[in-house]
Amino acid sequence: MDEVYNKPVKTVALIGKPRSHDIVEPINAIAACLREKGVRVLIESGTAALLDDMSDHADTVADYAVLGAQADVAIVVGGDGTMLDAARRLGTHGVPLVGVNVGRVGFMTDLSRSEIRAGIEELLAGKLLVERRFLLDVTIIRDGEDVCNALAFNDVVVNKGEIGRMIELEVRVDDEFLYVLRADGMIVSTPTGSTAYALSANGPILHPAVPGIAIVPLCPHALSNRPITIPDSSVVELLLLPPHDARVHFDGQGMFDTRAGDCVRVARAPHTVTLLHPQGYSYFAMLREKLHWSSTPRGS
Amino acid sequence: MDEVYNKPVKTVALIGKPRSHDIVEPINAIAACLREKGVRVLIESGTAALLDDMSDHADTVADYAVLGAQADVAIVVGGDGTMLDAARRLGTHGVPLVGVNVGRVGFMTDLSRSEIRAGIEELLAGKLLVERRFLLDVTIIRDGEDVCNALAFNDVVVNKGEIGRMIELEVRVDDEFLYVLRADGMIVSTPTGSTAYALSANGPILHPAVPGIAIVPLCPHALSNRPITIPDSSVVELLLLPPHDARVHFDGQGMFDTRAGDCVRVARAPHTVTLLHPQGYSYFAMLREKLHWSSTPRGS
Amino acid sequence: MDEVYNKPVKTVALIGKPRSHDIVEPINAIAACLREKGVRVLIESGTAALLDDMSDHADTVADYAVLGAQADVAIVVGGDGTMLDAARRLGTHGVPLVGVNVGRVGFMTDLSRSEIRAGIEELLAGKLLVERRFLLDVTIIRDGEDVCNALAFNDVVVNKGEIGRMIELEVRVDDEFLYVLRADGMIVSTPTGSTAYALSANGPILHPAVPGIAIVPLCPHALSNRPITIPDSSVVELLLLPPHDARVHFDGQGMFDTRAGDCVRVARAPHTVTLLHPQGYSYFAMLREKLHWSSTPRGS
Amino acid sequence: MDEVYNKPVKTVALIGKPRSHDIVEPINAIAACLREKGVRVLIESGTAALLDDMSDHADTVADYAVLGAQADVAIVVGGDGTMLDAARRLGTHGVPLVGVNVGRVGFMTDLSRSEIRAGIEELLAGKLLVERRFLLDVTIIRDGEDVCNALAFNDVVVNKGEIGRMIELEVRVDDEFLYVLRADGMIVSTPTGSTAYALSANGPILHPAVPGIAIVPLCPHALSNRPITIPDSSVVELLLLPPHDARVHFDGQGMFDTRAGDCVRVARAPHTVTLLHPQGYSYFAMLREKLHWSSTPRGS
Repeated sequence: MDEVYNKPVKTVALIGKPRSHDIVEPINAIAACLREKGVRVLIESGTAALLDDMSDHADTVADYAVLGAQADVAIVVGGDGTMLDAARRLGTHGVPLVGVNVGRVGFMTDLSRSEIRAGIEELLAGKLLVERRFLLDVTIIRDGEDVCNALAFNDVVVNKGEIGRMIELEVRVDDEFLYVLRADGMIVSTPTGSTAYALSANGPILHPAVPGIAIVPLCPHALSNRPITIPDSSVVELLLLPPHDARVHFDGQGMFDTRAGDCVRVARAPHTVTLLHPQGYSYFAMLREKLHWSSTPRGS
Repeated sequence: MDEVYNKPVKTVALIGKPRSHDIVEPINAIAACLREKGVRVLIESGTAALLDDMSDHADTVADYAVLGAQADVAIVVGGDGTMLDAARRLGTHGVPLVGVNVGRVGFMTDLSRSEIRAGIEELLAGKLLVERRFLLDVTIIRDGEDVCNALAFNDVVVNKGEIGRMIELEVRVDDEFLYVLRADGMIVSTPTGSTAYALSANGPILHPAVPGIAIVPLCPHALSNRPITIPDSSVVELLLLPPHDARVHFDGQGMFDTRAGDCVRVARAPHTVTLLHPQGYSYFAMLREKLHWSSTPRGS
Repeated sequence: MDEVYNKPVKTVALIGKPRSHDIVEPINAIAACLREKGVRVLIESGTAALLDDMSDHADTVADYAVLGAQADVAIVVGGDGTMLDAARRLGTHGVPLVGVNVGRVGFMTDLSRSEIRAGIEELLAGKLLVERRFLLDVTIIRDGEDVCNALAFNDVVVNKGEIGRMIELEVRVDDEFLYVLRADGMIVSTPTGSTAYALSANGPILHPAVPGIAIVPLCPHALSNRPITIPDSSVVELLLLPPHDARVHFDGQGMFDTRAGDCVRVARAPHTVTLLHPQGYSYFAMLREKLHWSSTPRGS
Repeated sequence: MDEVYNKPVKTVALIGKPRSHDIVEPINAIAACLREKGVRVLIESGTAALLDDMSDHADTVADYAVLGAQADVAIVVGGDGTMLDAARRLGTHGVPLVGVNVGRVGFMTDLSRSEIRAGIEELLAGKLLVERRFLLDVTIIRDGEDVCNALAFNDVVVNKGEIGRMIELEVRVDDEFLYVLRADGMIVSTPTGSTAYALSANGPILHPAVPGIAIVPLCPHALSNRPITIPDSSVVELLLLPPHDARVHFDGQGMFDTRAGDCVRVARAPHTVTLLHPQGYSYFAMLREKLHWSSTPRGS
């Protein structure tokens, strides 16, 4: 990760965790800091609704369409969930994202509140590091028609539905039959999602620079149905077999109820998400912290 | 896998499983079939020693250096172990390999004996499918000097040694500290090796087209030390910490005893191995057979 | 398992897999064989409804209460699911169960159709082997009141519910705090259930003679939340924490929707289920067949 | 665990971690405290050799045979390894053990240094809690003769040996064939050992009160070779098949080299080890600390 983000930054979008009052103070501080440096601030309208007094700068409230069209960079304040949402909404517009956490460090929200000012200075000085990550494009096809289209940054999960019985999926990759899976469900995950839900399901950790997609069965009936990582150019199709009771989840934030015969097609989206990290950012350091790994080198 | 191997095939090397009499009859049959079609045959000298009567064609016996220099293609008869050995020896010479199994289908020896003649015809007709796989280059560094250099096609395993006690490794990736591992050992695996030993150690299955390296701890002391897949451009360094009793294995076929302070450096080798597969070859079909997955599509 | 079942067998209940026409022919054959030998036959009323012609012996149709009161033994024809249901319904009455499979061998339905006649002869000759297995007693407590009572032979599963979000459970064992679990859910399993759903969730296989209860998290957020086996005398309490969306399943056959604050209390039931097996029955042989283990001894 | 140890305590053995100077100060403190209270102190001879000045009480130095014959209780200062060793040596003599850690809390050394005095007072007041744990008895049989006999408190591990190749074992339980295992090895573990090496190999955690033995394959070739827990009354036999290169480890502290055809027989030893814990001891609290589980109850 040697590339720095040195394009001009004249307009910055601010996006906070929905319905969280913890983001008010940091959002105000970031806005003040940016304005002080002559940067135009756009506040996402849901976030703006949380702020006490917007009278001074009501003109800066904007919805995602405007943010996508006008912002040079978005600063996202919250946790990984807020970041997932912003990535799906702004990923297609190519707006780079900076993540600020309001509690514990997140997998993607790597700046802590105390580092905000330094982070903004690095941003404006063109020193933040660039990392590109891919999104998944999901289409659900019923009787030959697309009935659902969605993006996912972490994962697409086909899970047993309301009744809670094991489901059966016929899995195809690039038009080739892989297997019939009998399981609680199936996770199709990006490298970004490999440290989220997929990890709990015994999926592999994929470094964000690995161009792969992990397909991770959930409680498979056959013990040899181990997770597989396939190239990110692959198209995965999950055909829902009867008896059937399944639901598709996108990043754990959206869902769609399926019927037997539906086909869930997942492929890498054409757009990528650009994350900006402070100088000194380390993916491995973040993993060590999140997974409680030993943190001190011992050798020379 | 759409590319076919259509270069001229005038000289073919034959390599059999060492000390196995099961390969005599198929080697003789392949040699006869090739000569009949006017192809020059070179028989690897260890393999030739197993054949009863080499008097008719004694001139065709050759060692690996000659095979590497003169053969257009090598046909390997045996199991995956024979293939691993041939890949390391001929991989640097760029000789493509065709695998023939003499018992059960292997992960790489995909032609059965009954398919040999058809396979040779596809080979000569320029119809075999091309698949490229990478090797790992291993260097062991002691007091600043390289004390061992080796190639691995499946995996490099740093394992506890003779005394059998847990070892400690400081793991670095691209000069960055990852963690200190306390474990029975560590597997560094190619996608090719991901269905071999690494799979038994709970490693991820990596499709051969995924440009990744899996690092898989063996019985790690910390339950969160899960396998990680990193880009195949990464350099992995395993620094052996005292108290120490470790041995490094290359494809389970070669080994080197290490000392505390030794550094095992693993990176993708510059050369790739070319495998040739018959028309209709399917990696997933092979996985289904080897892992006993359901084999019949059920949907439309 | 040396004890044989040699009590007098004068009345036998026949129970078939619900709504399955595959059981008609074996049920008729078993009934004929028993009547021929002078044994009174009681056919479970749901099963009887599947039989074409009950006119000859309509008086033998009975519901579970009658079966429990009058049958000396029940022969269950179907799969493991049919057996689970019969075990819960008849377990409290102490009626021993013989399992007959109509397709593949089951974990509990060990007699195949071709072995039925021999099995009946062993039954009447007092030669079937006795195995006792325990049931779980489940109580769900809301605001100090019992709102649900159920039995489970395999497992009690607290799972995320309709919305499909991760749930939080405070787990207590014998009134002592174990941990707060963040997961898709929790399985509390008997040894009988340890080869069923719990096995898919990475739970331990418990031999039926081990007096233990396995508690197996489903996709736990913390990687160190490994399954634990506790004595079968333990009382497990799962307290459902908000935000909450959970459902409790009994053997995957019954369910109950819970609210935040509900406590699911699981303990060994006072009654045991008696399974009768043919001479030569082997739990390990059954495991080998079901799990595709190597089946041939190799040593002396 | 309601039983307290209220037999008279007139003589106490002190055992320290071998060659560790960290135990000198706590051993001296414990000895002083005990003498002050009129209790006779016996210091294990290896431990005594570490103490600076034994001139005042040279008569108290004793070897394990004397400790076993004369001590009412042994206080073990060190880590779990020291405890394992003491358990095997004194277990057959029925001397109860109290564990004192000199660093981090251990699975068995539950008293910290600051709690020593209070612990001794509870011991002398007859208030320590009694827990009984079983040992494994291992016999290695070659050509019909016993060639090795050993005890293990944690586990018996049959592991690949010097060459480091996969081994094959024919596994029998109570004279019944289980399977042929192809693996790096096999762990046979007590509940005590279930949180040690077996846990790293994906074995189940067994509460110490579960009368079971876990058999846990190490990197098995077949993915369905999952760990199994069998009753503690079982006799496990591991027959070493050729080609063969295996070594048997007892608690990771002793070892024995085997040959093809050797049979490793493992069964519960007739003697149990008695551990004494302070009032308020909790197995689950210890697990939470060692496995980094959430530690705070959240519900009512």
